Amino acid sequence: MMITDIAHYLQTQGQIIEQELDRLVPLRHAPYQQLFDSARYALLGGGKRLRPILTLTTTRILKGDPHLALIPACALELIHTYSMIHDDLPCMDDDDYRRGKPTVHKKHSEGHAVLTGDFLLTYAFEILATHHHLNAEKKSQLIATLAYRSGSDGMIGGQVMDLEYEGKKVSLDQLRLLHRHKTAALITASIEFGGIIANATPVQLDHLRQFGEAIGLVFQIIDDILDVTSSHTKHGKAIASDILNEKSTYVSLLGIEQAQVYAQNLYNQAIQSLKSLPYDTSLLIGLADFILERKH
Amino acid sequence: MMITDIAHYLQTQGQIIEQELDRLVPLRHAPYQQLFDSARYALLGGGKRLRPILTLTTTRILKGDPHLALIPACALELIHTYSMIHDDLPCMDDDDYRRGKPTVHKKHSEGHAVLTGDFLLTYAFEILATHHHLNAEKKSQLIATLAYRSGSDGMIGGQVMDLEYEGKKVSLDQLRLLHRHKTAALITASIEFGGIIANATPVQLDHLRQFGEAIGLVFQIIDDILDVTSSHTKHGKAIASDILNEKSTYVSLLGIEQAQVYAQNLYNQAIQSLKSLPYDTSLLIGLADFILERKH
Repeated sequence: MMITDIAHYLQTQGQIIEQELDRLVPLRHAPYQQLFDSARYALLGGGKRLRPILTLTTTRILKGDPHLALIPACALELIHTYSMIHDDLPCMDDDDYRRGKPTVHKKHSEGHAVLTGDFLLTYAFEILATHHHLNAEKKSQLIATLAYRSGSDGMIGGQVMDLEYEGKKVSLDQLRLLHRHKTAALITASIEFGGIIANATPVQLDHLRQFGEAIGLVFQIIDDILDVTSSHTKHGKAIASDILNEKSTYVSLLGIEQAQVYAQNLYNQAIQSLKSLPYDTSLLIGLADFILERKH
Repeated sequence: MMITDIAHYLQTQGQIIEQELDRLVPLRHAPYQQLFDSARYALLGGGKRLRPILTLTTTRILKGDPHLALIPACALELIHTYSMIHDDLPCMDDDDYRRGKPTVHKKHSEGHAVLTGDFLLTYAFEILATHHHLNAEKKSQLIATLAYRSGSDGMIGGQVMDLEYEGKKVSLDQLRLLHRHKTAALITASIEFGGIIANATPVQLDHLRQFGEAIGLVFQIIDDILDVTSSHTKHGKAIASDILNEKSTYVSLLGIEQAQVYAQNLYNQAIQSLKSLPYDTSLLIGLADFILERKH
C-alpha cells in the first residue's frame, strides 16, 4: 500500500474513532461536568489513534466485523490516554505539554488529572463489559487481555521500571524489557483485540502477537529517534524530554544510525510474522510502514 | 446476633480475605519487586475488610457458594485500596498516615503511589475476568457492576465532587449525593456482588441494593462522627482531618447528635430492605449493627 493511501486510511479511520470517543465520553452537567470536560480535553482532538486503528484493521483483514471492534478499539484509546495523563504528572515525567497543548494537570489541577486518569481506566473496562453485541465469553477475553497488557506485566510494569531506571545507565536488554512492557504491550493488545473479535485461531493469535510486539518496539525506537531529531512544533512536546529526564533511550544506547537499523530489523520480523496468515495483510503492512517511516 | 459474635465473625472472615490477598499479590523479584512491595504494603496487614466481608456474607445468606465469592470479594478490596492510595496523595487529601502507618507516597514516592494505585485498579478487573469457576456471563456482570460503582457515577464521581466542594459550604443534599457516590457506591457493589454470585432475582437484587446504599451512608456518617470524636491511635489517622481540609461533613452540617439520629434512621431503612428476602439475614443485620455501632 502506498504511503499516501495509508495517510488517507489513517485519517478516515481516525475520524471514526474520534466520533465514537465523542459519543462515549459526552458533555455532562454539574456535578459531573468537570470530570467529563477534563476527560474530553485529554481524549479528543488529537492523537494518531494508532492503537484503535490497529484493532479495526486487524479485525478487518481477518474478515471480522469492524463495527463490533469499534468500542473495544476505543477502550484501548481510553487506556492509552489515562496512561499519558498519569505519566505527565509532576511526580512522574513532569511534562507541561502534550500534543502541543498544556497537559491535564496544567490545564486543570493535579488532583483532577489523577481522577481523570482513574476514570478513563475504569471506564475502559465498563464499556467492554457492557458491550451489547459481543458475547460474554469474548468480553471476558478482551477484558483479561486488556488488564494483563496494561497491568504489572505490561504497561504499568514498564512505567515502574522507567521510574527506577531514571538517572541510571541501563543495558539494551533492560531497555528492551522496559519498552516491551511500557509501549509494546498495549500495541500488542490492540492487535490481539482484532484477533479475538474476528475469531482468530490460537496459532493465528500467536502470529498476530509476534507482529504486535515487534511493531510496538519499532514504534518506541522511532519515538526515541524523533525525540532528538524533531522540533517542538512537529512532535508536540519539548525537544528531547527524555534527555532532560536523564532517561536511557535506544538513541542514547545505540546512536541514531544503529537505532534505525535495529528498528528496520524488528520491522522485518514483524512482516515475517504476518506471512503465515491466510489473509490479505497489506493494510497491516501499510500501518507497519507508517510506524517505521513516520515523521511525528 | 451478639456484637461479640460479630466481632469474631469479622475477625475470621478478615483472615480469609487477608490470606487470599496475600496469594493474589505475592512477593515478586526485580524488576517487579518494588511495585508488588508497595501494593502489599498498602493492601496487607490492616483494614476491616468490610467490603469483601459484605460480599462473602451476602453470598452466604442467599445460599450461594462463598468460595466462588472469594476472588470477587478481593477485587473490591483492591479497588478500595487503590482509591485510598490516590486519595492520600498530596494533590488530593494530602494525608501522611493511614491506619497508623505512613501512606504509600510517604513510604515510597508519589510516582510509585500513582502507579501502585493504577496497578491495583487494573488488577481488580483482571482477577474477575480470569476467574476460573464463574461463567463468562457472571464475570461480565460483576465487571460492569464494579466499573459502574467505582467510576464517574460512583466512587470517582464522588471524589471529584469532594475536590470541588473543598473549602465551600455545601448543602445536606449535596453532601448526601457526594457520599452516595464516594462511599456508598462501592459498599453497594459489595452487596450486589453477593447477589450476582448467588443468583439473586432482579427484585432481590433491588432490595439488596437499597440495603447497600443505606448502610453505605451509615458507614460514612459514623466515619464523620469518629473523625471528630476518636483519637489518633484509635482511628489511625490524624484527628479531624476533614476539618483541617475544610470539608463539610455530616457532623459540621448537623452536629454530632443529629448526625447520629440520621444514621439510626438510615440503619432502620437498611434493615427494612432486608425484610422481604426469603432468607435468614441475621448475619447481614449483624454487620449493619457493627457499621452503626463501631468505635473505629
